[in-house]
Amino acid sequence: MTAVQAPTLAGRVGEFAARADLDDVPQEVLERARHLVLDAVGLAFASTAYPFPGVALQALTAFGGAGEQPVLGMSERLPARDAAVLNGVLIHGMDFDDTHIPAVTHVSAAALPAALAAAISRGADTRTLLLAYVLGVEVSARVGIGGAGGFHDVGFHPTAVAGAFGAAVAAGRVSGLDAAGITRAQGVVGSMSAGLLEFLADGSWTKRLHPGWAAMSGLTAAGFASAGWSGPPAVYEGRFGLYNTHLAGRETRPEAVGAELGETWELMRTAVKPYPICHFIHAFADAALLLREEIGDTTIREIRCAIHPVPGKVVCEPPEAKWAPRDEYDAKFSLPYVVATALTRGRFTLAELEDDALADRAVLDLAQKVRVSDDPDSGFPAAYSGAVEIELADGRVLRHREQVNRGHEDRPLTNDEIAAKFRDTIGRVAPDAIASLDLLAREVAPVLRSTPAVRPAAAGPASDRKDSPWTSASSSPSATTAG
Amino acid sequence: MTAVQAPTLAGRVGEFAARADLDDVPQEVLERARHLVLDAVGLAFASTAYPFPGVALQALTAFGGAGEQPVLGMSERLPARDAAVLNGVLIHGMDFDDTHIPAVTHVSAAALPAALAAAISRGADTRTLLLAYVLGVEVSARVGIGGAGGFHDVGFHPTAVAGAFGAAVAAGRVSGLDAAGITRAQGVVGSMSAGLLEFLADGSWTKRLHPGWAAMSGLTAAGFASAGWSGPPAVYEGRFGLYNTHLAGRETRPEAVGAELGETWELMRTAVKPYPICHFIHAFADAALLLREEIGDTTIREIRCAIHPVPGKVVCEPPEAKWAPRDEYDAKFSLPYVVATALTRGRFTLAELEDDALADRAVLDLAQKVRVSDDPDSGFPAAYSGAVEIELADGRVLRHREQVNRGHEDRPLTNDEIAAKFRDTIGRVAPDAIASLDLLAREVAPVLRSTPAVRPAAAGPASDRKDSPWTSASSSPSATTAG
Repeated sequence: MTAVQAPTLAGRVGEFAARADLDDVPQEVLERARHLVLDAVGLAFASTAYPFPGVALQALTAFGGAGEQPVLGMSERLPARDAAVLNGVLIHGMDFDDTHIPAVTHVSAAALPAALAAAISRGADTRTLLLAYVLGVEVSARVGIGGAGGFHDVGFHPTAVAGAFGAAVAAGRVSGLDAAGITRAQGVVGSMSAGLLEFLADGSWTKRLHPGWAAMSGLTAAGFASAGWSGPPAVYEGRFGLYNTHLAGRETRPEAVGAELGETWELMRTAVKPYPICHFIHAFADAALLLREEIGDTTIREIRCAIHPVPGKVVCEPPEAKWAPRDEYDAKFSLPYVVATALTRGRFTLAELEDDALADRAVLDLAQKVRVSDDPDSGFPAAYSGAVEIELADGRVLRHREQVNRGHEDRPLTNDEIAAKFRDTIGRVAPDAIASLDLLAREVAPVLRSTPAVRPAAAGPASDRKDSPWTSASSSPSATTAG
Repeated sequence: MTAVQAPTLAGRVGEFAARADLDDVPQEVLERARHLVLDAVGLAFASTAYPFPGVALQALTAFGGAGEQPVLGMSERLPARDAAVLNGVLIHGMDFDDTHIPAVTHVSAAALPAALAAAISRGADTRTLLLAYVLGVEVSARVGIGGAGGFHDVGFHPTAVAGAFGAAVAAGRVSGLDAAGITRAQGVVGSMSAGLLEFLADGSWTKRLHPGWAAMSGLTAAGFASAGWSGPPAVYEGRFGLYNTHLAGRETRPEAVGAELGETWELMRTAVKPYPICHFIHAFADAALLLREEIGDTTIREIRCAIHPVPGKVVCEPPEAKWAPRDEYDAKFSLPYVVATALTRGRFTLAELEDDALADRAVLDLAQKVRVSDDPDSGFPAAYSGAVEIELADGRVLRHREQVNRGHEDRPLTNDEIAAKFRDTIGRVAPDAIASLDLLAREVAPVLRSTPAVRPAAAGPASDRKDSPWTSASSSPSATTAG
């Protein structure tokens, strides 16, 4: 065991995390944190409607041991580290989860599963859970910022690579580690932190696994640090630390890892996606929904959308393919489909990506009326602007421009908007029993605000366990089917 | 799921590994493989005398589930993936395990735990286990070679980074994956492969964890591939694959990964360490032991050692510190201590690193008679030469030079020498019951040669389970004490 070198960055993070007190976190930050957790929980439930969580479950149990930790939205119980993997898969799997924009890191998808698994293992109270989650977000975001954009350039996925460090700190704090212990945990997780962007070549599912693996790595590293295992204290800035290895020869900002801890809250810069579609189209969806109120029953003659040519290439070309998306993935990147859907259905939620929505004749007919032009006034790349002009059969022409897309750092979703998103996501798999503000008020919010210990319920027959607040009572059977 | 791109390197490895047949592996390679396994098993048993396996066990059980897999030399049962981690720690923890020299990769420490855990989980026979282990070694070595020396230069530990790929292939083969499945397993493990050299700064224990973590990663990746999870097929050579990310902008040899599979056996180039000390001193230990036979009871007046100045700096300076090593670690890097011990005790085994050996007055007195000079005829760096000249009280001067150190690729340990090393390592913790050739003949060798299924014995009281061939009957109680 080596004494901590006083001034290392991991040491500073360790000091901060070991001493942090929930009462020192501004109320505004805590309230936002609760809503980010709410968002993540809703997304996890919604993911159970897809095949990928079932595949992950099958994978983990292939070589897995028995365990008693609950999994968000699923009835199975797993060992703590496997539950962390699966919760990460559930939160991030639809790519609809929050992102710290300057770090380009999906922060909650690793920090929450790590904090949750540690809290359940240790019988920690929910104040400790919430604090650990906040610390995890603060650290992951800073480690991502330290990369100065280089991770994506070289081919490392910061959601995975930076997420592991936040997870280690979150789990370390829940485990009651002191500053030296949390420093060791970061040193250990530096040898676990991994995740390649090679999935971009073919859409491989490795991306879906990244934050859960990071959560599990952080949890394991905290376990090793707890037991007394040593890790290098200069794991960030050292000669063979994170930045000098992963971003060799590049300009990086390691000092960002230890900067303004407890003073600036990176959690407040974490963006929540309002729609389950490509960022470039969000402003168009908002504009279309706004104009829809003025259209009434009048027939639409033409829809003219103006977009910067760079994002335009991604979401508007080739027009024929964009008018009629073949699958959910195509639909997420089709401006005509999204605008036509918003105008026809008055919303764009996960339901609008399902097969019946993709076959909706009214939507597809309207999508063909979308014409695209260059937008000379676009805020791109600082913001993803959207300008929509609708010509009606009665001769009226309606116009609306969203210069800064909602969800942007300068225009974050309100907490109420996040709560509304939660109703949509959780409502997808539990529409009857719990998809209502009632649930939010009665069940989930108190869990996040109250202080009693979070412990897994004693194992019982599966039917008894379905009532856990973490488990959807009516989740689709397909949720646990391998695909 | 994406179709495998026919010509990717992972695809070629997948094809090879899925079709490989034990009967196609040359007898010489299989016989060597059995001895490498024997070496690894002996080392694992010997490691149980140190505190680090107990710390690892405590760490793994901190967030661990229950499991039934045996661990080499310990009585605890763990889930498969945790057993793989701990077996890796046990094999590599003393840094006395085998190394593929061109890859600078400790190959068995990841390949064997992965193959073993998968074989026990799947109830595979020992032929499958042995084949999977061989495949793991072949792949890890090639992935390390592909780095062309760059991994160490940038700060990645190939034992960990390359080891994960071999482990994935070994576990994938045991799991019965086809070529596409083993290709996917490599794609998935590419996002888990990790390990920083930052431990060099302070001797952190992360190094000890690297191959076990690689084994666990490979096992998990094989589980995901089995369930149908997808991974990028160009994980080695792709734009954001292993080499372009970890060794960005450097000359690498990705094609080595798929080269001469089944034609050249890298396993035969895997070096076994004859002594538990720094490579630079091995030739001196051999020379001293050889000269010892001619010395008899005659008093030694002076010992003159000639060494190349580069390794000399590491193992001879400063002389005062080298004459009297403070601890085991110092002793491993002291030429005077090693030579004096070999001359005094007639051997250099793990016992010669224990506290009583370090306090041996006769050895310490003799160490002070060692004088060092530059060796103009040294084979360094191609080989680590050692020249020893001993001046006796009766006027005789004895000389011996080992130009190429034993264990070098051009002068590998014989299988009999490996068996002798096994008697030493396993004898350390089980001197009475099993430290004999009898054990080797009766218990271990048949396990490796026979074909019945390897399954964990049914769980029983700990005392019943002590008789497992994987468990030392008399392992030191300190083995499970956290330090």
